[in-house]
Amino acid sequence: MVSSHSAATARPQQVSLRRRGPVLERAILDAALEQLSTVGWNGLTMEGVAAAAQTGKAAVYRRWPSKEDLVVEALRDGLPAMEEPPDLGSVRADLYELCAAIREGMYSRTGAALRAVLHECDGSSAERFHELIISSVIEPSTRLFGEVVRRGIARGEVRSDAADAMVYDVIPALMMYRTKVCASDWADVEIAEVIDKVMMPLLRLPSG
Amino acid sequence: MVSSHSAATARPQQVSLRRRGPVLERAILDAALEQLSTVGWNGLTMEGVAAAAQTGKAAVYRRWPSKEDLVVEALRDGLPAMEEPPDLGSVRADLYELCAAIREGMYSRTGAALRAVLHECDGSSAERFHELIISSVIEPSTRLFGEVVRRGIARGEVRSDAADAMVYDVIPALMMYRTKVCASDWADVEIAEVIDKVMMPLLRLPSG
Repeated sequence: MVSSHSAATARPQQVSLRRRGPVLERAILDAALEQLSTVGWNGLTMEGVAAAAQTGKAAVYRRWPSKEDLVVEALRDGLPAMEEPPDLGSVRADLYELCAAIREGMYSRTGAALRAVLHECDGSSAERFHELIISSVIEPSTRLFGEVVRRGIARGEVRSDAADAMVYDVIPALMMYRTKVCASDWADVEIAEVIDKVMMPLLRLPSG
Repeated sequence: MVSSHSAATARPQQVSLRRRGPVLERAILDAALEQLSTVGWNGLTMEGVAAAAQTGKAAVYRRWPSKEDLVVEALRDGLPAMEEPPDLGSVRADLYELCAAIREGMYSRTGAALRAVLHECDGSSAERFHELIISSVIEPSTRLFGEVVRRGIARGEVRSDAADAMVYDVIPALMMYRTKVCASDWADVEIAEVIDKVMMPLLRLPSG
């Protein structure tokens, strides 16, 4: 039992010692995401994560033998589960909703962390992160754009040969490009421009 | 005067000492590009550049007070001057030539160096590199795609409202996205797919 005069300074340490299993793991994964979104992949250290999670380095290494293992799990765990695509009755409205959802994901903490990894992981860790990105971001995004486009085709609103992976990549590609290169923050008006100036002409029936 | 038995080992040093002005500058800028494309922005050091250029650190610092100054000049100097866009009589052929030229630039040494900077320069140097990228890559690319599209409009081949910066960004965005995310190396067949599945439907006349 600590004496009352030292309780205030001792509290964080006591809390960390009492945490068990899932609660401690949650704190470590949260700390890893926080580090990724602030200091990036290169700046993240197991020591820094342990300190931010108010635990010891050993508690981190016991669960994740390497920084790479820890980050892969933190990202996989933190990425939003992709739900059903919007179904608002028109391809234009559905695309707008989908873009707004992607923007929300991009500016989330996990989104920032994922970008940090994407930008820095060109070295030996690249392959594993690459698989994570494919399975957790690209494939779900392709699936959602695909469903929106196929529903548009079924409604007779979209040309039938627009059901193609290259077409589904256009919005994610423009969002990545203009975020990185033009420092766009994807105001509503820019989302509307992508849809009206690129996607709608790209998808419309040849007979117009 | 060195004695004959030490001449072989002393040669590199002698060569470096004899170089002057533009020749030495050229060697330093070349070494900086080489370092960027191998160890990246984070790995590049003034010491490493000096060693690779077979000169002293002081010779580098005398010309470029910081790593950032050196890299900005090396990239600006190494980027290909964008020439006139291809003019082959059809928008499809012109776009194909332009994509092939971009691919060639992407896989050049300066292209690799530029990607290293783009991926890593999110910190305090970002703004200066951002300006360089805008002025040396994005603006010339936008101009070339714009000229190809406007000539297509003039020929009656392309819809008149396709002359828009968002449209000109589609190919550069897809090339960046699929290179980074799908690890595409832009085989000829993929360039043809981007043009036939995305750009041609996007550009064609509504009455098509």
